Amino acid sequence: MYEILIEGNVCSPQGFQANGVRSGIKESGKPDLAMLFSEKPARCFGVFTQNNVQAAPVILDREILEQNTKIHGVIVNSGNANACTGAQGMQNAQEMVKLAEKETKSDAGSFLVCSTGIIGHQLPMEKIRQHTPELVPSLSERGGHHFAEAIMTTDTRSKHIGAAVATAHGVVKIGGASKGSGMIHPNMATMLAFVSTDIALPDDFQEIYQELIEASFNSITVDGDQSTNDTSLLFANGASGIAYADLNEQEKQQFVQALGEVLQILARKIIEDGEGATKLVTFQVEQARTREEARSVARFVANSKLVKTAVFGEDPNWGRLLSAAGSSGVKVKADAIDIYIGEHQVVLGGCGTGIDEDVLRKIVCLPEYTIRIVLGLGKEEARVWASDLSYEYVRINAEYTT
Amino acid sequence: MYEILIEGNVCSPQGFQANGVRSGIKESGKPDLAMLFSEKPARCFGVFTQNNVQAAPVILDREILEQNTKIHGVIVNSGNANACTGAQGMQNAQEMVKLAEKETKSDAGSFLVCSTGIIGHQLPMEKIRQHTPELVPSLSERGGHHFAEAIMTTDTRSKHIGAAVATAHGVVKIGGASKGSGMIHPNMATMLAFVSTDIALPDDFQEIYQELIEASFNSITVDGDQSTNDTSLLFANGASGIAYADLNEQEKQQFVQALGEVLQILARKIIEDGEGATKLVTFQVEQARTREEARSVARFVANSKLVKTAVFGEDPNWGRLLSAAGSSGVKVKADAIDIYIGEHQVVLGGCGTGIDEDVLRKIVCLPEYTIRIVLGLGKEEARVWASDLSYEYVRINAEYTT
Repeated sequence: MYEILIEGNVCSPQGFQANGVRSGIKESGKPDLAMLFSEKPARCFGVFTQNNVQAAPVILDREILEQNTKIHGVIVNSGNANACTGAQGMQNAQEMVKLAEKETKSDAGSFLVCSTGIIGHQLPMEKIRQHTPELVPSLSERGGHHFAEAIMTTDTRSKHIGAAVATAHGVVKIGGASKGSGMIHPNMATMLAFVSTDIALPDDFQEIYQELIEASFNSITVDGDQSTNDTSLLFANGASGIAYADLNEQEKQQFVQALGEVLQILARKIIEDGEGATKLVTFQVEQARTREEARSVARFVANSKLVKTAVFGEDPNWGRLLSAAGSSGVKVKADAIDIYIGEHQVVLGGCGTGIDEDVLRKIVCLPEYTIRIVLGLGKEEARVWASDLSYEYVRINAEYTT
Repeated sequence: MYEILIEGNVCSPQGFQANGVRSGIKESGKPDLAMLFSEKPARCFGVFTQNNVQAAPVILDREILEQNTKIHGVIVNSGNANACTGAQGMQNAQEMVKLAEKETKSDAGSFLVCSTGIIGHQLPMEKIRQHTPELVPSLSERGGHHFAEAIMTTDTRSKHIGAAVATAHGVVKIGGASKGSGMIHPNMATMLAFVSTDIALPDDFQEIYQELIEASFNSITVDGDQSTNDTSLLFANGASGIAYADLNEQEKQQFVQALGEVLQILARKIIEDGEGATKLVTFQVEQARTREEARSVARFVANSKLVKTAVFGEDPNWGRLLSAAGSSGVKVKADAIDIYIGEHQVVLGGCGTGIDEDVLRKIVCLPEYTIRIVLGLGKEEARVWASDLSYEYVRINAEYTT
């Protein structure tokens, strides 16, 4: 049994404190320096961008987690991604970690750092040096919302959620915050997600976490590109006194399901907040040989410019869906493919069903709907959530100047 | 020595006849039924779409060429792609071949068929049956331009070119026509290319032809998707009395170079004709480990929506270029990457060079320019030509209704 906590945030689980302040990195003067902290070091699991061009904080966090996975917290700045900044950028990331460790009186190697914002500019370190000392004293169990706000770049609203899982040993909580500019800002297309929980998790939970990230943050698509900074961190501090190992199979399953739902909600909030996005379409690929193939097809179709413009234009264009499914690189069989828009079958065995387009138009005019592509090859499936490709998308991305 | 013949077309080489007529498949009443014919059967080489969803004529042509590569010609219709049309579609494609063979008094299995146009509708066979007999009597050595016109869908101009190669044995000619709607029409995004030559070519020329297609038609990108109908056919009828085998190494090289240039010109004409396209950018990737990796990076960057909108917005946004290069799936090293916009180096070893943006803006405001991405990993390179992502692109693709 678990319930979703709408007002939940990174401080919902026991033993976590957070904060967010204005340091002046953002010209807008909005909050841009944040911290999540656990007195008791938490087992930390990280999943990072697959981009071969990685920002300094991503490189550094990987290194830190290779040495030590007992982590007190993370310091985050928005407004500057510290990406493509060379040796100076790495020094600055290291200094941010040291500042956080010093102010929180934590051991060396027990803090992580994330940055999001413009690429190719050095961090204004004097501002970070000046404001980190004021970030720490006001860390609070009520600071989760401040944290979620201070990590925003061009997000129009902060993104947070929580969950409570009932077990025989008591309640375990999960809290999370995410930021993602989605379509909004081209050089700031970083996705960050921070999830806290007061359960104690074993080392081999990494694999489960990775799989949950695949089904959430790696299953949303706006641009098709991965940014230089994408980072997702899970902190499990065990402050509830309950360990994952103590749970029975059903409880474990419940916890994993709750964590997965928290991650999916945080991911979908990014898509929903994409400026220029007028639709949220779920692309569900079924009967694939493997889950990877299902994902490849779903991602390719969801990223197709022709599909995305058809979604924007409210055009039930099954020809583009079928052609994109064939073009994904996965060996599909055209005459085995069925496609559904909402409830309505539009393709049967690779041919159009001739369904009345007025019926379909009622579906594609909705703000949210599902497209199912049934490959007829196996038993695996995957879902990808995507936004559309609108005039607004082009305007925002074309008008932005470096 | 070779020269490009601006007014060249599929009838420039000896022994080829062509024609194009109005059959009424297109509602506009424009020419939509075409034929290319060689009295002497030609060695035919085909390269087809890699899409797993293939139109009936693509499936049929592959089958025909597996049985017999001595081909008299091809019958082409525009206005209807005969794709996703099931068993009836295959019967119709077969009937088109038979009609062409009957009217030209050619042997069974010596004709090919291509279709381009809307997906998911059966061909109006009665129109094709009625008009094929009038297509054939008026086949002519001066029909190359009619052919190029009748294969157009939403192309705004017909695309043709030729070349003449001087050899010690005499002159060999090459002629070609292409059509591609590029961004223009989503359900008609078929690329067709037909090239004729009066040299005799050996069977093992397929490999060279394939490589030339890679460097031309497979190196242009508008949408990133491959259509269900993409087809490129090369007909070598030997009517000049000259065989490729007779040429010396230098002459062979000249012929291949001329053929390559003809294919590249035909490919670039497709990009230039893309409605909504305001730019033609050459993405040149250098110092890759392999040519395939160079191509993967070039294609990924050229297809990136963030890069394409920056090109449209005349924004010299090197951060997006670097991030896209890292995101392509090829294992690049960020700190080894240099990037040039026009002559100007914008990235050195993965960091911005801090070059004055006004200097760059002069380049990115040009209708055509080159972006070079130097990976520092090896010696291979590849080029991709791409258009931008404009409001007009979204309008055309969103407003189209099935």
